[in-house]
Amino acid sequence: MDKPIRSANEAAEQIVRWSDEQNISICFDKAGKMKSCPIGSSGACCSNCHVGPCRLIGSNAEEEATGVCGASLPSIVARNFLRKVVSGTAAHSDHARDMAFTLLAVATGEAKDFRIADEHKLFKMADILEINHQGRDVMEVAKDVATTLIDDFGRQRGEINYLKRAPQKTQERWKKWGVIPRGVDREVCEGMHRTHMGVDHDPDNLLLNAVKVALADGWAGSMISTDISDVLFGTPHPMRGKAGFGMFKDDEVNIVVHGHEPTLAEMIVLMADDPEMQEYARSKGAAGINLGGMCCTANEILMRHGIPTAGGFTNQELAILTGKVDAMTVDVQCIMPALVKLSERFHTKVVTTSDKAKFTGATHVGYEEHRAAEIAKEIIKLAVDNFPNRKKNGYTATDQQDLVAGFSQEYIEYMQGGRMRASFRPLNDAIQVGRIRGVVGLAGCDNPRVPAQGLHRYLAKEFIKSDVLVVSTGCGSHACQAAGYMTPEMALEHAGPGLKEVCEAIGIPPILPLGSCVDNSRILTILTAMAAEGGLSEEIGGMPGVGIAPEWMSEKALAIGTYFAASGVPVIFGGESPVGASNEVTRIMSETWYERFKGAFHFEPDPEKIFDMALKYIDAARDALKLKKYEPGKFGVERVLMDMAARRESSL
Amino acid sequence: MDKPIRSANEAAEQIVRWSDEQNISICFDKAGKMKSCPIGSSGACCSNCHVGPCRLIGSNAEEEATGVCGASLPSIVARNFLRKVVSGTAAHSDHARDMAFTLLAVATGEAKDFRIADEHKLFKMADILEINHQGRDVMEVAKDVATTLIDDFGRQRGEINYLKRAPQKTQERWKKWGVIPRGVDREVCEGMHRTHMGVDHDPDNLLLNAVKVALADGWAGSMISTDISDVLFGTPHPMRGKAGFGMFKDDEVNIVVHGHEPTLAEMIVLMADDPEMQEYARSKGAAGINLGGMCCTANEILMRHGIPTAGGFTNQELAILTGKVDAMTVDVQCIMPALVKLSERFHTKVVTTSDKAKFTGATHVGYEEHRAAEIAKEIIKLAVDNFPNRKKNGYTATDQQDLVAGFSQEYIEYMQGGRMRASFRPLNDAIQVGRIRGVVGLAGCDNPRVPAQGLHRYLAKEFIKSDVLVVSTGCGSHACQAAGYMTPEMALEHAGPGLKEVCEAIGIPPILPLGSCVDNSRILTILTAMAAEGGLSEEIGGMPGVGIAPEWMSEKALAIGTYFAASGVPVIFGGESPVGASNEVTRIMSETWYERFKGAFHFEPDPEKIFDMALKYIDAARDALKLKKYEPGKFGVERVLMDMAARRESSL
Repeated sequence: MDKPIRSANEAAEQIVRWSDEQNISICFDKAGKMKSCPIGSSGACCSNCHVGPCRLIGSNAEEEATGVCGASLPSIVARNFLRKVVSGTAAHSDHARDMAFTLLAVATGEAKDFRIADEHKLFKMADILEINHQGRDVMEVAKDVATTLIDDFGRQRGEINYLKRAPQKTQERWKKWGVIPRGVDREVCEGMHRTHMGVDHDPDNLLLNAVKVALADGWAGSMISTDISDVLFGTPHPMRGKAGFGMFKDDEVNIVVHGHEPTLAEMIVLMADDPEMQEYARSKGAAGINLGGMCCTANEILMRHGIPTAGGFTNQELAILTGKVDAMTVDVQCIMPALVKLSERFHTKVVTTSDKAKFTGATHVGYEEHRAAEIAKEIIKLAVDNFPNRKKNGYTATDQQDLVAGFSQEYIEYMQGGRMRASFRPLNDAIQVGRIRGVVGLAGCDNPRVPAQGLHRYLAKEFIKSDVLVVSTGCGSHACQAAGYMTPEMALEHAGPGLKEVCEAIGIPPILPLGSCVDNSRILTILTAMAAEGGLSEEIGGMPGVGIAPEWMSEKALAIGTYFAASGVPVIFGGESPVGASNEVTRIMSETWYERFKGAFHFEPDPEKIFDMALKYIDAARDALKLKKYEPGKFGVERVLMDMAARRESSL
Repeated sequence: MDKPIRSANEAAEQIVRWSDEQNISICFDKAGKMKSCPIGSSGACCSNCHVGPCRLIGSNAEEEATGVCGASLPSIVARNFLRKVVSGTAAHSDHARDMAFTLLAVATGEAKDFRIADEHKLFKMADILEINHQGRDVMEVAKDVATTLIDDFGRQRGEINYLKRAPQKTQERWKKWGVIPRGVDREVCEGMHRTHMGVDHDPDNLLLNAVKVALADGWAGSMISTDISDVLFGTPHPMRGKAGFGMFKDDEVNIVVHGHEPTLAEMIVLMADDPEMQEYARSKGAAGINLGGMCCTANEILMRHGIPTAGGFTNQELAILTGKVDAMTVDVQCIMPALVKLSERFHTKVVTTSDKAKFTGATHVGYEEHRAAEIAKEIIKLAVDNFPNRKKNGYTATDQQDLVAGFSQEYIEYMQGGRMRASFRPLNDAIQVGRIRGVVGLAGCDNPRVPAQGLHRYLAKEFIKSDVLVVSTGCGSHACQAAGYMTPEMALEHAGPGLKEVCEAIGIPPILPLGSCVDNSRILTILTAMAAEGGLSEEIGGMPGVGIAPEWMSEKALAIGTYFAASGVPVIFGGESPVGASNEVTRIMSETWYERFKGAFHFEPDPEKIFDMALKYIDAARDALKLKKYEPGKFGVERVLMDMAARRESSL
């Protein structure tokens, strides 16, 4: 091969190479041609006032250089980091706000097309929020839950509701360090104020504020999104599905739902089965309507409906290159604006649906929750109308990988004991004795600046080989799904003997996809449940677990990494460090945060080093908890291997 | 002279030159050495995700270049602009929030050291907010007013309260274009969401959002700050004062209060007169306690107490170079972090007072409103204790300019008709007949990248010469004050004959300082009152007025410029354009906004062109309103000139 590999996903790489032949420029070429600014990417550029932008460079910049105002490199780096955490938090939280208002509209009867899909989860939320639900009308309870959670956005004083879900000791650390968020929006606003010219300049103080803002993301924005999505659309349980570009059909109308907010996507899923829509598709010569997901929306509808996924961030352009996508709906976050121009070369209609996110040249169909079904139908019709326009000028992909998705906290508890004895006991036991060495959360984006999805693949495989259970979210899941790693067979073939034994016993894959990127909040509640179960750490900090985002690219990822670190999870991100220009900031985020919160935030571009560092954290946590020393190969080797295919049939 | 002029303020320039001799590096040298990044300063750098930062350069970048994600130059430029407006809005609004909570604490008796200084203004606010105050306890009214305004920050739906103060037609434009802000924090949060990777990419949609966010600044954040400051500390009326570094005394304890939030500064003003503090100063060998202001805090205490001002943004380091400042307290915004290191060379103690804004190496005395007097005393004592440590190694400045400050809307109405017939009739009449050609707001920062304060001086003088009344705020006021322009004599010597006549008749300077940068909101309410008075435009748009910030540097300035443009005022900023990389964005902000809002936002580095452009806007507005054509020299030339000194004595 002459050219470097640009996607570690072989099917994707073939499309990338085909696009080269066709002289079509996509993110991979552009990443090759566009050198990222080395000053800005390490956090050393301050553009927060118009005396600048000041660029602090040179070998002794940390000690000597300052901006024109006198801002030091550490304060500039910390300020840039805080502003990015603010943006990530704002993104997740604005998504959560929409979910909360949708729940309210459902409860008040304004959004008639939706229903409460999981009353049990709603009541669980009511319990946490101390809202009585005994004998009350479910819609009344939903209204109170929605209203209480909406308060989390606008609250000016007090504390975000869900913080009290965290282990007591974790909460005490937050209190001690003054990082309890009041309301999401207030923290976002204060973070932006602090990063304004001439406000906060103490790196530690800025980074503590980043912690405060990020906690509002993890324990409000993200967690509220997850919970309400479960209530409205169902709490996920395992579901078979497919991943890959081979999902697109020649004889059916192909619609890709791409983005982050699940509400409209859910309605499109429902309406695609509507006889009127099916009939309409046939009237235009199509055999049916075929839906596929992209990015986090893909995770949402895969884990609840088994809708196939076309992939994650770096796959979005490739879907259009197949020439078979009749419409791609997008809402907010991680949408490449390149899609619009690219779609013109084929026949795809790119449909924007959020008034917050318009794209010059796209078709805009503004989503409104009280007309959800109507709008879903409008979009489907638009796709159907476009079906006859296919130019047949795309790349014919055939890849399809089997997968199992849909592991919520609720299901993980259930699978460990059934309905009556649901608990985390077996998992904690398995960790205590060393069958499972530890747990890694594999999250974050995929990135065209590395062989895309490749770091996820490498790490996922190495971890399970070392008896580390992997949970994944967002584009981390997409990477593993496209690799075919999300099957119970993966345990049989690649997991270490201890982990394999556990996976076999329960009938699960060694890599458990937990959902979209807001569903990283599921990891917080799972860790909390594990702490409550006993036998490991009493708080989130100190668990033999690590969070990893090897190919991160978005500001949301930084917010996520920060709330995990602040909640007690050591976090390792790949790529160049956005705080790499300052040793002091790097030290505070890795060492000081570890002392204070038992979590840390590292940046390490070398995947082998990421792997080693993660195992070191896991083994150190095992030691500190006085767990049995992990011994590779101690468990499972003498067991008779079950027929995994049969087990899979029976367990799902 | 070998060296270029770095400050147009002669006294400042002398200190700058002295600092050169002493090898002390301050912002002026640093600005000379640190080239600002030409890509970032024109808005063409996108660092909102970690695939980048992408730099879009080249002569055809607007048409062809994109970021790796496909983001076009116009969308990147618009997104960067929006994010800056968000930061500026967050800064003003966080200040306003503190004011609102202080008012609440005063009302509930928790902040016993403060009182309601202007009941009349409180009742006026209550009327606007539709809160009954007839026969009610003032503290009860204050509580309701505070609570209602606090709601403006956290509100999730509905409209910001004060928007209804705007002329009906102005409000209709906002409704038509969908830019009515709901709550300050929600708009800040949504703005940050929209600027996240992969969200909003339509430049016009992004810029409309900037308008929405900025309106939350102008008509909530800033206006709430102004109103509550007046209620708590008094609505300004003209007051004589002094400006210049000559204010520092050899034999007294010199304390500079620097920053933006007036609350602690007010308490320091009160406590400096406390016999206990005076006695303490004498016990350390000082003859007394001498206060001075810096930046917007200077404007606040100058216009309410006549406390001398040491200047604006570019003067802050120079104050320390006098070697006579025993303590400089700072809170938030526009504080140069360089102060701390600089202070070490002299003896000055830099005291940070806001937990939101710490500076490595500074002394932190955290302000709490319920202990205001106690904390003010603590700071004064700290300064007194430092008095004996003076090294006498500073530059001895002697400059002192006379000035008149303190022109609130209320006083401007009063001065035009007395208590019984207060109105804007005379001003409107003067504009209608052409005695006054128009009004210019001279606002924004001063900047070390131009001969600092020089553009303000040039423009102020040229405008009044052309019969244009100037109102100033923030560092615009500092520039004119240090120049000695803020006196009634200035009208006599430099104003055009029509304007001179008006100034003489009322006894005012031709340049009216309206206060701090949040007090730009006074211009909004003044314009609204002028619209209501009749004879000019029925809305803010169409008035013969222009807003100018020739030396802007902060993100707050961009928020201010945007809310003025959106309220109907053509705005011209100096310096390089932060949206200069995109013709489309430049066109939307100048032409499209003008069509929609009758305001516009221009960037023009050449001060002569700023002057010409402003006059063109003014004359075009006069034409459109069918006012008498402005004729230079038509008025005033034959009047017997009164003795201005005598008038000044009698009118103040």
